[in-house]
Amino acid sequence: MTISEEAIELREKNRGILETSLKMPVQDRHDLAVIYTPGVAEPCLRIKEDPDLSFALTCRGNTVAVISDGTRVLGLGDIGPAAAIPVMEGKSAIYKKFGNIDAIPLVIDTKDPEEFIQTVRLLGKSFAGINLEDISSPKCYDIEDRLKAEMDIPVFHDDQHGTAIAALAGVLGGLRCTGKKIEDVKIVMNGAGAAGTAIARLLLEAGARHLTILASKGILYDNGRLNRVQKELCQRINPDNHTGTFRDAVTGADVLIGCSAPGAFRKEDMALMADKNIVFAMANPVPEMMLPEAREAGIYIFGTGRSDMPNQINNSSVFPGLFRGALDVKARQINEEMKLAAAYALADLLPEGELSPDHVVADVFDSRVPHAVARAVAAAAIRSGAARVSEMPLSYRD
Amino acid sequence: MTISEEAIELREKNRGILETSLKMPVQDRHDLAVIYTPGVAEPCLRIKEDPDLSFALTCRGNTVAVISDGTRVLGLGDIGPAAAIPVMEGKSAIYKKFGNIDAIPLVIDTKDPEEFIQTVRLLGKSFAGINLEDISSPKCYDIEDRLKAEMDIPVFHDDQHGTAIAALAGVLGGLRCTGKKIEDVKIVMNGAGAAGTAIARLLLEAGARHLTILASKGILYDNGRLNRVQKELCQRINPDNHTGTFRDAVTGADVLIGCSAPGAFRKEDMALMADKNIVFAMANPVPEMMLPEAREAGIYIFGTGRSDMPNQINNSSVFPGLFRGALDVKARQINEEMKLAAAYALADLLPEGELSPDHVVADVFDSRVPHAVARAVAAAAIRSGAARVSEMPLSYRD
Repeated sequence: MTISEEAIELREKNRGILETSLKMPVQDRHDLAVIYTPGVAEPCLRIKEDPDLSFALTCRGNTVAVISDGTRVLGLGDIGPAAAIPVMEGKSAIYKKFGNIDAIPLVIDTKDPEEFIQTVRLLGKSFAGINLEDISSPKCYDIEDRLKAEMDIPVFHDDQHGTAIAALAGVLGGLRCTGKKIEDVKIVMNGAGAAGTAIARLLLEAGARHLTILASKGILYDNGRLNRVQKELCQRINPDNHTGTFRDAVTGADVLIGCSAPGAFRKEDMALMADKNIVFAMANPVPEMMLPEAREAGIYIFGTGRSDMPNQINNSSVFPGLFRGALDVKARQINEEMKLAAAYALADLLPEGELSPDHVVADVFDSRVPHAVARAVAAAAIRSGAARVSEMPLSYRD
Repeated sequence: MTISEEAIELREKNRGILETSLKMPVQDRHDLAVIYTPGVAEPCLRIKEDPDLSFALTCRGNTVAVISDGTRVLGLGDIGPAAAIPVMEGKSAIYKKFGNIDAIPLVIDTKDPEEFIQTVRLLGKSFAGINLEDISSPKCYDIEDRLKAEMDIPVFHDDQHGTAIAALAGVLGGLRCTGKKIEDVKIVMNGAGAAGTAIARLLLEAGARHLTILASKGILYDNGRLNRVQKELCQRINPDNHTGTFRDAVTGADVLIGCSAPGAFRKEDMALMADKNIVFAMANPVPEMMLPEAREAGIYIFGTGRSDMPNQINNSSVFPGLFRGALDVKARQINEEMKLAAAYALADLLPEGELSPDHVVADVFDSRVPHAVARAVAAAAIRSGAARVSEMPLSYRD
């Protein structure tokens, strides 16, 4: 049976993969009186006096909405809101499994950004955080920016930032192996969509100084048809509008990251890269280059988004711990400090003895990952003023 | 410790009462590949081809949203969306416990009916049903009517219709005890808010012919200040605009139902009622009359909304089974036939031997209730064309 067949069988049998459950038994009239009427009145009144108590006295404090409009689902494109539910549900399951977060899959039946923004904004009091998912570019940028400005809980477009954090962690882990420094290396980002631009931005935040972005036509420059995020990036890294081919860009490069398309990386081009090169082929589920070709091309460190190859560079190792840390300090937002802290925590997690070219970064099944990421994010939130609390929760103290 | 203190302690300790859980273990990379990428692509594609498959292949099919704007929460009034969460969460827990339905508490941060309607409408593809809750009257009528017209899943304002079904079931159970018929008895509905008007409407649907509605100033008549639902009711039951006092109305009445205020029913007025009278004092948590006074007044059948008195007339015995039946046949709506079927199933559930003046109707802790209600509702949905399926599910066949 293929994975696809298994997925269908499992979902048909169980009617999906996620359900709700009660945190305590409700066995008699007394229990019912406590959880519902008349007992429920007192928590209502306390929250009326102090709305922030809704985080402590209800499920809100541990609940994140995973929300999409279905306009760019996986590599499947604009398949609509109903067809996007399996992804939101699967992601919600990962939140629970690895972050003990109660995530709720939601799809919004509109392609209009204003309607989408309004809907999410009006739901804000129901949740402690918002994971935006599978929204087409470039509207995903404005939607996230607007919601971040208008809401007092974290709003996080995981396709951008979860991917960026995972990629940065992978790059830093790879550089640990090679002994190179992020300030010195030549990095090529192949792909200028939501994920590619977010990776580029975070690499710059982390100190990268020699970064080239490649789009389908070659090196990205301001040709007058860029979206605002691409344009901002070009102003920073290519102000003189240099042009060039894929081959021009990768020649001598230390790091190549792909968020592009299956087969985009050819063996002969990889040979142009520097020694001890790092290639992350993150197109999912079929990467820019498969593992056997990467071996033949002599790539020193090769990673993909897949769990069946070495060096899985995937946001699943990021978002459960990231939101766990944010929720534990009642964060109002997820800011740049918190994203960098997550990446550094992930990159630094493996001790030298466990680090190797085929294991540059820990993945989601490494049980140390969610806690390490959460702790770093919680601390960064407190440091940067994004947290509603001022002290690290007990669970993070050694 | 009081119930209120217990409620706070329980909620503080557990951070609410509801969580999510996975329907199957996720133990290794293979499991992850099945529930998430790449396995998740196939269910997405199948739903893209046939959006109704989202009910069978995702959690959507068993998920109901319990949604409020917090404008009329319990008897606490307009306490706002965050403060309404405990009620939505408690109700969601009851859905799970008694109906095995995955209900999601949601609050919408607006008092504007149009914004509320738009938000719920755009979320429609996420759920198999909508339970509207604790929305102030009269806007609750328009909100429900509009959403029912614009959505293809059940939309049900439980404060109206759940209460009405429970009250009708109680009346029918009480009449079984007294040997009277609904067509013949004189019924007084005290209260003309959302619950009172819904009870009145459902009593008429069920064949009541001698019905009087009382508001705070006496018998309800068209004084030019009624909302549209009150006005429609007056046109049906009081077209000549008779006026009168509470005492006028209850004199000779067989049935008196209160959805009004604590202490509204006085002993001396109850003495004016007919023999073998039925009084349901449903104000919650403090009823129109307490049990000792009811005994002193010689009321033959007395019930309240409370679980610590005989004859609990409460929507908790209705909504879990009602939505269970609706979801099991993929209902597009909950129509009048389904509501009546729920009431009849509940009223008829107790065999003669179990029926007594202090036990006229089964309550939520009677394990027969949810299934009996669900079966009747499912059958009515199929009969009336509200169901997406044409045959009773296997679980309901004897």
